[in-house]
Amino acid sequence: MMMQTPLTMTQMIKRAEKFFPKKQVISRTTKGIKRFTYKEIAERTRRLADSLQKLGVERGDRVGTLAWNTHRHLEAYFAIPCSGAVLHTINIRLAPQHISYIINHAEDKVLLIDSDILPLIEAIKDHIPTVKAFVIMTDEDELPETTLSPVYHYEELISKGSNDYEYPDDIDENAPAGMCYTSATTGNPKGVVYTHRSTVLHSMALGMVDSAGVSEKDIALPVVPMFHVNAWGLPFAGVWFGTTLVMPGAYFTPKILAELIEQEKVTMTAGVPTIWLGLLKELEANEYDLSSLRYILCGGSAAPKSMIKAFEQKYKIPFIHAYGMTETSPLVVISNLKSYQEELSDEEKLEYKAKQGVLVPGLEMKVVGKDGEVAWDGKEMGELAIRGPWIASEYYKDERTADAFRDGWLYTGDVVTVDEEGFMKIVDRTKDLIKSGGEWISSVDLENALMAHEAIFEAAVIAVPHEQWQERPIACVVLKENAQATKEELIEFLKPQFAKWWLPDDILFMDEIPKTSVGKFLKRALRDQVQEQIQQ
Amino acid sequence: MMMQTPLTMTQMIKRAEKFFPKKQVISRTTKGIKRFTYKEIAERTRRLADSLQKLGVERGDRVGTLAWNTHRHLEAYFAIPCSGAVLHTINIRLAPQHISYIINHAEDKVLLIDSDILPLIEAIKDHIPTVKAFVIMTDEDELPETTLSPVYHYEELISKGSNDYEYPDDIDENAPAGMCYTSATTGNPKGVVYTHRSTVLHSMALGMVDSAGVSEKDIALPVVPMFHVNAWGLPFAGVWFGTTLVMPGAYFTPKILAELIEQEKVTMTAGVPTIWLGLLKELEANEYDLSSLRYILCGGSAAPKSMIKAFEQKYKIPFIHAYGMTETSPLVVISNLKSYQEELSDEEKLEYKAKQGVLVPGLEMKVVGKDGEVAWDGKEMGELAIRGPWIASEYYKDERTADAFRDGWLYTGDVVTVDEEGFMKIVDRTKDLIKSGGEWISSVDLENALMAHEAIFEAAVIAVPHEQWQERPIACVVLKENAQATKEELIEFLKPQFAKWWLPDDILFMDEIPKTSVGKFLKRALRDQVQEQIQQ
Repeated sequence: MMMQTPLTMTQMIKRAEKFFPKKQVISRTTKGIKRFTYKEIAERTRRLADSLQKLGVERGDRVGTLAWNTHRHLEAYFAIPCSGAVLHTINIRLAPQHISYIINHAEDKVLLIDSDILPLIEAIKDHIPTVKAFVIMTDEDELPETTLSPVYHYEELISKGSNDYEYPDDIDENAPAGMCYTSATTGNPKGVVYTHRSTVLHSMALGMVDSAGVSEKDIALPVVPMFHVNAWGLPFAGVWFGTTLVMPGAYFTPKILAELIEQEKVTMTAGVPTIWLGLLKELEANEYDLSSLRYILCGGSAAPKSMIKAFEQKYKIPFIHAYGMTETSPLVVISNLKSYQEELSDEEKLEYKAKQGVLVPGLEMKVVGKDGEVAWDGKEMGELAIRGPWIASEYYKDERTADAFRDGWLYTGDVVTVDEEGFMKIVDRTKDLIKSGGEWISSVDLENALMAHEAIFEAAVIAVPHEQWQERPIACVVLKENAQATKEELIEFLKPQFAKWWLPDDILFMDEIPKTSVGKFLKRALRDQVQEQIQQ
Repeated sequence: MMMQTPLTMTQMIKRAEKFFPKKQVISRTTKGIKRFTYKEIAERTRRLADSLQKLGVERGDRVGTLAWNTHRHLEAYFAIPCSGAVLHTINIRLAPQHISYIINHAEDKVLLIDSDILPLIEAIKDHIPTVKAFVIMTDEDELPETTLSPVYHYEELISKGSNDYEYPDDIDENAPAGMCYTSATTGNPKGVVYTHRSTVLHSMALGMVDSAGVSEKDIALPVVPMFHVNAWGLPFAGVWFGTTLVMPGAYFTPKILAELIEQEKVTMTAGVPTIWLGLLKELEANEYDLSSLRYILCGGSAAPKSMIKAFEQKYKIPFIHAYGMTETSPLVVISNLKSYQEELSDEEKLEYKAKQGVLVPGLEMKVVGKDGEVAWDGKEMGELAIRGPWIASEYYKDERTADAFRDGWLYTGDVVTVDEEGFMKIVDRTKDLIKSGGEWISSVDLENALMAHEAIFEAAVIAVPHEQWQERPIACVVLKENAQATKEELIEFLKPQFAKWWLPDDILFMDEIPKTSVGKFLKRALRDQVQEQIQQ
């Protein structure tokens, strides 16, 4: 038969060191752009692994990170799981009480913290008793002033770690390798535990042509934070394949991003629509040569068609939609056109590219409506359910597991249609669907239509209770700077595109739309706000 | 944690049917080119699976195939493993006694046979008692005359199979899925058993950019026979990704291949050097537009540099070397240039492309010399050992397992060097190395140098016993049609390229060099032949 060699992550960093020692990780630090070869990164990673063991980190222990996309965070991405511990990336944008909840819930033993994030942890330090050591990742030679204790300087710590350290070779492929908490609609965040096997398989998928096609030839810039579903797995895949990685660091602006892409000749980058809206504005204001980009990968929430069109047609930058979530590692669906779709007109292509796309090899999906699986006709709506080796089977020690994981499937809470070509399109979150007179109205469809209007910067559509129809849609819009539009104009603009009963009952003009820490519309807060406004 | 969904092959054919029902399998039959959609292939495959069960095939039973690269063989590739049985592809070029040995050793229950291969099985039918049924894969409407019994007509059989058949969903990922026997230097062929897991992982690897990058966008023509390491896994990967597959059928010539590539706009094809030598001759004789080819994949044995150069520089067809064996599924190493190597001169690139290349993601390798692991300096020679999830751990019920599988590694019997860039180069088979005065001479290096001579069509270098030096090299060469060269000329030609003691003691001119059934030099036979010649 075949060898039972486990799918563990150690092979990734070893391959980078052995086959691509000269390739680079480029890190934007507070002291400017620094370049590290994979030879250096691999050595620093080994030293970190050894240092963590010396701090008392044992097999299976959780080590938390509160950090931006940097070379040090990348080292932690491998040192922690490859030594048998669990990499717990913490979303620094969460509320302090949620951060202390997840540190306690995960029982983190050590925290690695970027120096600018120190105040956040200092504020909760008395509430996280499991943490035995704090390691500060700073670009400075000295430790900053801090009330944390015991505290270590990252560079000093790893300089004492041994370069002869050897990763254990007996890690089970189903052993935990990482974890990430995802916000819940109500209550505390929910934890997802990734395994070595799930991470290796997801990384293989990222390297496949029919998925993201990440390769040695790429210069990849993960904009999506490393505390958000492992920066979509790009650091793992990138290191494994010897990809040049460009780490944008903390506090970058659209201008900084555009400059990094231009200067480092970045070939692929990944992030949420908010980032790309910002980049688009920057491209409209200033001139850049971004022709090195093979594509921009966009996920997290649906990108408006107008934005896809601007990137593809105006700036000639291929724009690829993808779909996933913390529970799915995250890649599930990606909007690569099929070979014969390349012959479609630009407008027809745009229709497909605005959808989330086709299931990547390795997973299974089904769409469940009120009466079982729905037809793949682009019309019937149902909840997307997913199954596969890089999909979570539970929330970590959490009773809410039963809500989402049923009969061996993850029920995503996303309402979708699938067309005859197998292209999935997000219609709504189950909880954001507007149920009007027994029929469903997609808030996302209305939002996309509104965002295609030249005066509109952002639009969110929510349900408000209605006596006769149970629920009715209300649109909340933010106009572009110096742009103008009236409610009547916007309704007229929507009319030719939708059935009459889909049209919003009202359009509210706002300065901004409340968003989650990862840039998604916070519809619950918006509903409360609108409710208040209506009642006034 | 993560779902424990098994890596089984059923997902491959299901994905093709669900997402790529319109894509095609193009099959060259005795009645011309036939086209089948994946919708049709998936239906025919289900019907075949059902029919085999009705013939008594149970979970774990072996079903043998003796067939060319056709759409029917492709259906068997999925119907057999997806129903829980084991696909045993039989090399029809083996000697009859070896074929009956492996049918008996594998205990095949049913044989699927291409009609032109019938005589081969009729001749051994009384020696294969485990076989309970023969299914004839013919393009004709009627069964051919045959002495086999009980015998079934493939098309008639599957027309009675049910399209409602459902593949079992409880197959273990480590269950056997396929098997293939490989020739041994002496004695009977040795069997390798592939699992669902190994096949799925190998297929993922084939889809990765840093490997063969097979994708939906490809039109793939597997020239390498489906009875030889599963046509290098291309049928599995191709179906999974919805790739257009072009099956060349039986008895194709270089002319037919060139026409198929041109007409079907083939983007990638794969086979052994002998095939590409033939194609090269055809391209020199007649004009074709093969510009659709992304690349030619070449493995099985080392391609001469002159051939690589001709394809790349004269015909502008990228030519990619790869390395593997039956025991390795087969892909291990592939000669994709690194991003920074693209800036080398054509000659420098050719140096790398003539090597077997870099380890694909997912495997581990080491090179073991007389004193442990050798340096990666392009000079030190050692035996290549490989480990990973698509590498065999044993020969099926065979005592020779202990020779090759040691300490969890497969010792390949190939002597290699690895250079500073991690590019592996086959120097020789351990048993073909020439040991002269305590030092090693690579027969392969001498062969490649000779084959770069304009008069030489093929060259094989072997060791002959020598009183003083233990062994000395002798070159056997076949000249091109109408070409001439003397022994002295050829020695002069080699002189500037090698140390004096590497130069062959003699050069023998021959009409042809004996080859194995898969086109590799049969050096054992050649040694016997030369020995005889010398003694005369």
